[in-house]
Amino acid sequence: MNGISVVKIGGKVVSDASKLQEALSSFASISGPKILVHGGGSEASSLAEQMGIAVKMIDGRRITDDKMLDVVVMVYGGLVNKRVVARLQALGVNALGLSGADGNTILSEKRPIGEIDYGFAGDIKNVNGVAFYDLLNAGFVPVFCALTHDGKGMMLNTNADTIASEIAVELSKSFKVRLIYTFELNGVLNSIEDKNSVIPSISETDFQQMRKDGVINEGMIPKIKNALDAAHQGVSEVFIGHFSKMEQPEKGTLICL
Amino acid sequence: MNGISVVKIGGKVVSDASKLQEALSSFASISGPKILVHGGGSEASSLAEQMGIAVKMIDGRRITDDKMLDVVVMVYGGLVNKRVVARLQALGVNALGLSGADGNTILSEKRPIGEIDYGFAGDIKNVNGVAFYDLLNAGFVPVFCALTHDGKGMMLNTNADTIASEIAVELSKSFKVRLIYTFELNGVLNSIEDKNSVIPSISETDFQQMRKDGVINEGMIPKIKNALDAAHQGVSEVFIGHFSKMEQPEKGTLICL
Repeated sequence: MNGISVVKIGGKVVSDASKLQEALSSFASISGPKILVHGGGSEASSLAEQMGIAVKMIDGRRITDDKMLDVVVMVYGGLVNKRVVARLQALGVNALGLSGADGNTILSEKRPIGEIDYGFAGDIKNVNGVAFYDLLNAGFVPVFCALTHDGKGMMLNTNADTIASEIAVELSKSFKVRLIYTFELNGVLNSIEDKNSVIPSISETDFQQMRKDGVINEGMIPKIKNALDAAHQGVSEVFIGHFSKMEQPEKGTLICL
Repeated sequence: MNGISVVKIGGKVVSDASKLQEALSSFASISGPKILVHGGGSEASSLAEQMGIAVKMIDGRRITDDKMLDVVVMVYGGLVNKRVVARLQALGVNALGLSGADGNTILSEKRPIGEIDYGFAGDIKNVNGVAFYDLLNAGFVPVFCALTHDGKGMMLNTNADTIASEIAVELSKSFKVRLIYTFELNGVLNSIEDKNSVIPSISETDFQQMRKDGVINEGMIPKIKNALDAAHQGVSEVFIGHFSKMEQPEKGTLICL
């Protein structure tokens, strides 16, 4: 099996019906074996509010207490994952929804309490490459939500960007893998005011220089870092691009060593 | 592949932590390929109440409007399904959660509006035997919730008893299948006051006679009917028994032709 595409779509796309449809049509056009990883969207917070559960964030990161864990399991694993799977099926893609517990695909451990107690947040310990291979080999298209498990019966909330890169890195040990991070911009931009100012490729050296010069938008830094990490760990191609152009990721930004 | 066990556990067991643990330990002891189907439990209604969504029932059957559909997708497909899967994984069972949309395993159609409009309730049209075979063959243990899809992007609420029997019937076309309905009694009882008065076997003729004599509890009638239907359609063994004795279903009631 070769040329596996691992694609991440963000929460903002997932929560917007027409953007989601556009993203899924684009995903449907990707040929060869593929895996979709989706973020949770704003719906976890709105459900929590509706249920009278306090939403706690520190530096933009969610604190997952026991009540919020139930909420994210319901929203990420239920509402959003089944919405994506059912729509992909309608587009002829044989989608199959997964959390890390399903088929023991991703095992993690509860983040140790440091300065901040993130609650039921999981740091990935192991990606089960064989399970992904078996599913792809049987013709299924895994659709992964931002949940893993600890192997002792507990679900854990886990960052979707990290899930995508860890899956890509694991599968790269045996196959050629293309990792595509998608969002609402056309790629990494030279100027945030000009949506067509896509930087075609960024290397590690470029990235260091750009950070020094202060030309990269704050929000892009962790994304590029994540992408570079994946490239360093053997993922052959890593792209950052628009959610409607997954099948032509070269129109976005190639992240290379 | 032979001797596939299809086991149904009811919603009351799923919503009770210690009963669920007992049921899952029992399920873990079943040897050979197996599939678990679980009901939704009372948690869908409690979430709806917490969200201020009116719970509508007619003759004990849920009316699934669009808001309630989101609730059941969250609770059955997210909260309950992932709880069962994560706990089975902790017991060493390679569980993989499914709704009918996942892998297009069960296709249904929205129930036509008759005297009652059940809303987004699905009547099963097709069970994808190949998908179940592929998953079992790869060593996964499918854990099915009470949700199907219409193939056009819509999830549908579907009775878990029916899902269990339809899966069993489809797989019976190619394999020897044992269907086990479990609940909180030891089997079909001669006297509801005596929990040990299990009737060892009930045939179609016995059933007709018992209904005439009025000895069967009202609530048992649809269960036995469902079980007899499955037997009529080729399922080799059909049992009704206690949730903690799945691996010894012969201690409950055998339903035969």
